[in-house]
Amino acid sequence: MDEPRTREQRQKDTLHRLEHAVDAWVATADGGVPCLVPLSFHWDGAALYLSTLETNPTARNLTANGRVRLTLGETRDVVLIEGVASVVEPSPEVVSAFAARAGFDPSKLARYPYFRVEPRLIQAWREVNEIAGREIMRDGEWI
Amino acid sequence: MDEPRTREQRQKDTLHRLEHAVDAWVATADGGVPCLVPLSFHWDGAALYLSTLETNPTARNLTANGRVRLTLGETRDVVLIEGVASVVEPSPEVVSAFAARAGFDPSKLARYPYFRVEPRLIQAWREVNEIAGREIMRDGEWI
Repeated sequence: MDEPRTREQRQKDTLHRLEHAVDAWVATADGGVPCLVPLSFHWDGAALYLSTLETNPTARNLTANGRVRLTLGETRDVVLIEGVASVVEPSPEVVSAFAARAGFDPSKLARYPYFRVEPRLIQAWREVNEIAGREIMRDGEWI
Repeated sequence: MDEPRTREQRQKDTLHRLEHAVDAWVATADGGVPCLVPLSFHWDGAALYLSTLETNPTARNLTANGRVRLTLGETRDVVLIEGVASVVEPSPEVVSAFAARAGFDPSKLARYPYFRVEPRLIQAWREVNEIAGREIMRDGEWI
């Protein structure tokens, strides 16, 4: 097992993931019913952008309560993000960056809202020796 | 892009995943708040077994409402399972199989309940050409 990474290293690894990963696992909820789907996303340095058909449970949950948990990566190299989502009209820069990254352009489809997710909590860990120091963002601030 | 797999092939691939994957992404919910964690699991041919500390949100959600969504694999090779969980006292066979697979033995720890998850719905898909035929179990029955 490798030495546990420093918090600084985990923040660097996390930013790399945010900038390069294509998809995330996205969990939302409606009461006690969980929804979990893979979605492409775009990261603009401060927030993630998601888009899915407005009638899908994910979109309905995000619109109704804005609470979301996303994970990037593998189960043994976890980046877990807890955030608050809101429906937005994205800038042209975000529209084109999202389309390039996700491989589809919601701005050209009917009923595909964009959700902007502001991270509030981020945890990053690999093996059990990294569990203790896993928090790298709290209350929206990098630690 | 490969030809879309037949339903039979997806069922075979899914059973292989269930028999060999170590971890799953596990989504549960409490009053509109989603929880998403990676957990090790055991598959006994009919149900999945999970175990986590009883004070963790995942355990509390499973105990409170039993609703769970799990995914195995990657975001471009998805097995998605929707199931109902209940707290169980597992058989000795399940206890030792779980310990061998997960790398820890909840039966030797305090406050680590076992949850048995009965799948009700399973979907399997890779690229967009597999979205249409992705349902391979419905109402607990293989299609």
